[in-house]
Amino acid sequence: MTDTIKTYMREVGEKASAAALEIARADTGRKNAALAAIAGILLDKQAWLQEQNALDLEHGKNKGLDAALLDRLALTPERIQGMAEGLRQVAALPDPVGEISDLKKQPSGIQVGKMRVPLGVIGIIYESRPNVTADAAALCLKSGNATILRGGSEAIHSNLAIADCIYAGLEQAGLPADAVQVINTADRAAVGELITMSDTVSVIIPRGGKGLIERISRESTVPVIKHLDGICHVYIDDEADMDKAIAIAMNAKTHRYGVCNAMETLLVAEGAAQEILPKLADAYAEKDVELRGCKKTLAILPDIKAATEEDWDTEYLAPVLSIRIVDGIDQAIAHIHAHSSDHTDSIVTENYSRIMQFLREVDSSSVMVNASTRFADGFEYGLGAEIGISTDKLHARGPVGLEGLTSQKYIVLGEGHVRG
Amino acid sequence: MTDTIKTYMREVGEKASAAALEIARADTGRKNAALAAIAGILLDKQAWLQEQNALDLEHGKNKGLDAALLDRLALTPERIQGMAEGLRQVAALPDPVGEISDLKKQPSGIQVGKMRVPLGVIGIIYESRPNVTADAAALCLKSGNATILRGGSEAIHSNLAIADCIYAGLEQAGLPADAVQVINTADRAAVGELITMSDTVSVIIPRGGKGLIERISRESTVPVIKHLDGICHVYIDDEADMDKAIAIAMNAKTHRYGVCNAMETLLVAEGAAQEILPKLADAYAEKDVELRGCKKTLAILPDIKAATEEDWDTEYLAPVLSIRIVDGIDQAIAHIHAHSSDHTDSIVTENYSRIMQFLREVDSSSVMVNASTRFADGFEYGLGAEIGISTDKLHARGPVGLEGLTSQKYIVLGEGHVRG
Repeated sequence: MTDTIKTYMREVGEKASAAALEIARADTGRKNAALAAIAGILLDKQAWLQEQNALDLEHGKNKGLDAALLDRLALTPERIQGMAEGLRQVAALPDPVGEISDLKKQPSGIQVGKMRVPLGVIGIIYESRPNVTADAAALCLKSGNATILRGGSEAIHSNLAIADCIYAGLEQAGLPADAVQVINTADRAAVGELITMSDTVSVIIPRGGKGLIERISRESTVPVIKHLDGICHVYIDDEADMDKAIAIAMNAKTHRYGVCNAMETLLVAEGAAQEILPKLADAYAEKDVELRGCKKTLAILPDIKAATEEDWDTEYLAPVLSIRIVDGIDQAIAHIHAHSSDHTDSIVTENYSRIMQFLREVDSSSVMVNASTRFADGFEYGLGAEIGISTDKLHARGPVGLEGLTSQKYIVLGEGHVRG
Repeated sequence: MTDTIKTYMREVGEKASAAALEIARADTGRKNAALAAIAGILLDKQAWLQEQNALDLEHGKNKGLDAALLDRLALTPERIQGMAEGLRQVAALPDPVGEISDLKKQPSGIQVGKMRVPLGVIGIIYESRPNVTADAAALCLKSGNATILRGGSEAIHSNLAIADCIYAGLEQAGLPADAVQVINTADRAAVGELITMSDTVSVIIPRGGKGLIERISRESTVPVIKHLDGICHVYIDDEADMDKAIAIAMNAKTHRYGVCNAMETLLVAEGAAQEILPKLADAYAEKDVELRGCKKTLAILPDIKAATEEDWDTEYLAPVLSIRIVDGIDQAIAHIHAHSSDHTDSIVTENYSRIMQFLREVDSSSVMVNASTRFADGFEYGLGAEIGISTDKLHARGPVGLEGLTSQKYIVLGEGHVRG
């Protein structure tokens, strides 16, 4: 069995490599035509997609999947329209491939610059949402990469049905269907193969729960673009504008709870705590947010729960917030350094020097000033779309859009120049 | 023994992590002062450095190292001055750390941009040349990173002596001496440890022979910036300016033989071969370059050796050149795709469309037009210095200077903005 999977995956890898060459050279119009064709086919095949999705839903119910998981799995008409709309949005984005920049003449007379190029073959490993199949394929296609998609086994009928629409759209546009391949087996050995095919796969992007991402990072011999946690902080300085501070602290926690860019810990300067914490506590109480405070916080808000050491390292993804009072910016930065997951951290202050210090010293993929952590998002950053958020330091940091799926090679323009 | 090495290396890693925080925050003046101080100390201690180097040279002679290796190992007064000069050149380069770029206002009103930041801890693994100790430490220090250096065991006295000068210079400038650490054991287990310390080491840069680099890439769990081979091509098109073509083909092969950016295979369009190959053969003969040709080449140059399949995949690093006649640009690109090491490839032509096709379709770290492959170099590209050349696709491609030792985080400037 595993041998069969190995052979199958190696073939998938080789087909992807061959298709990557063609897709890298494909002109923008053809790639956009494919995206539009796929969008049209998804809409035309809506009834059939829902039939295939029903097989997954039924199987999931029989397996006892919980309601939240079944909801994520469901392909409603709105979600199918959402996929089609997403494909058209990606078609409308500028094509990053082939863009020449930074050409500068050197003392020798040659001009040296950079050209943006695709990475090659991108492996995406994800869990239950079938719409990822279309979203991820679109971004990889537009950025000139071939894609190997491995979705959750519970969504396999839905994913393969979406894949059929993608293959048909690619062929309509005259592009190789192998440019996007959805793994057709639920066998877990396929993942093990995919993440060790470093001869054919350029990068792996895992999307899903922390367990999945940790396992893949540990075992992959292919570079991985990932983020594990979103333990995001807001630090309210004693020179903060208190109205802005309250608005940001509320938005960062309560705008949405189950997202990686929600605030999990609020840090408040000692000089501001007495004034702002009671107001915040009232506002959070209205939203039923559970507060857990350090000793000093409890002295101001005696009715809330005490925070434990564990709280500082917990991504709640829920209406829960830990609060710590710090001496000032240095202790805030030290706390963030010790507990942040390097995702997104924000300072609220009017003090210029503290802003510059925070920007420089907080080493997270997004560092914010007087803004809600909820802005950490490819759309909000103007990337047009995102395939994920990276908390790694090499290659891509923060929201990863089309550019993050490319790299830059050097180009040199001479006129017969030789080195002396 | 291995346990002792493990403990020692883990300590080195932890000290490097702690120092990385400080060096990342160090201001430009202090880093430059340290570089200048180290340069001064190296010159002051020249006699002692040569004494320590003599121990390595004597040991090397007794071990039977060949003359070329002993030459690379030798710290002559010129090389010591070269190290000092290199340090001062790095001090003179602009500091990339903290540079804010690309700030753009988004529809929400926030301004989103990027700030350049150090990678953290960089592990450098190299072979016999002791001057790499100072050169690599300087680039990592200027780019705000802590460095762990592991040189060849045959150079250990020289490397530790240079390290002492570096430690003293860092302390003079008020920077932590742990920002640069040279491994003080010749035990090979130290390399095995270093390349698996992914909790403290951000990236490994191996410099040396292919064997070393292959082994490190295979075994490292830390990301590696590397290049294995330099199998560089020049393609002479039938619309080339023949004088430029001859100048470039001669320079790319004969300017220096033992370097990674020397041409190893010359591709000539059928329509140009009859005219240019006899001229080139004469010119190469004058330089004692051995030619090895494909069948078609042998028909024009009957006196040269026949090339075997192996020749197309060989980095000679010697006065040897393989020559293949191709139909035209498509076959040239196909040959490069099959045999290039993704280092540097150049086209010589006056034809605009073929130039654009070559730039787009050749997927090497440097792609050149009417210029010698010998230009692929950090200094020639205006980087000021280079720590190596990368043929990888993620993060850094081509010559890696100070920027390649940094990454960019997102910064967001708001004025109380929250997400709606």
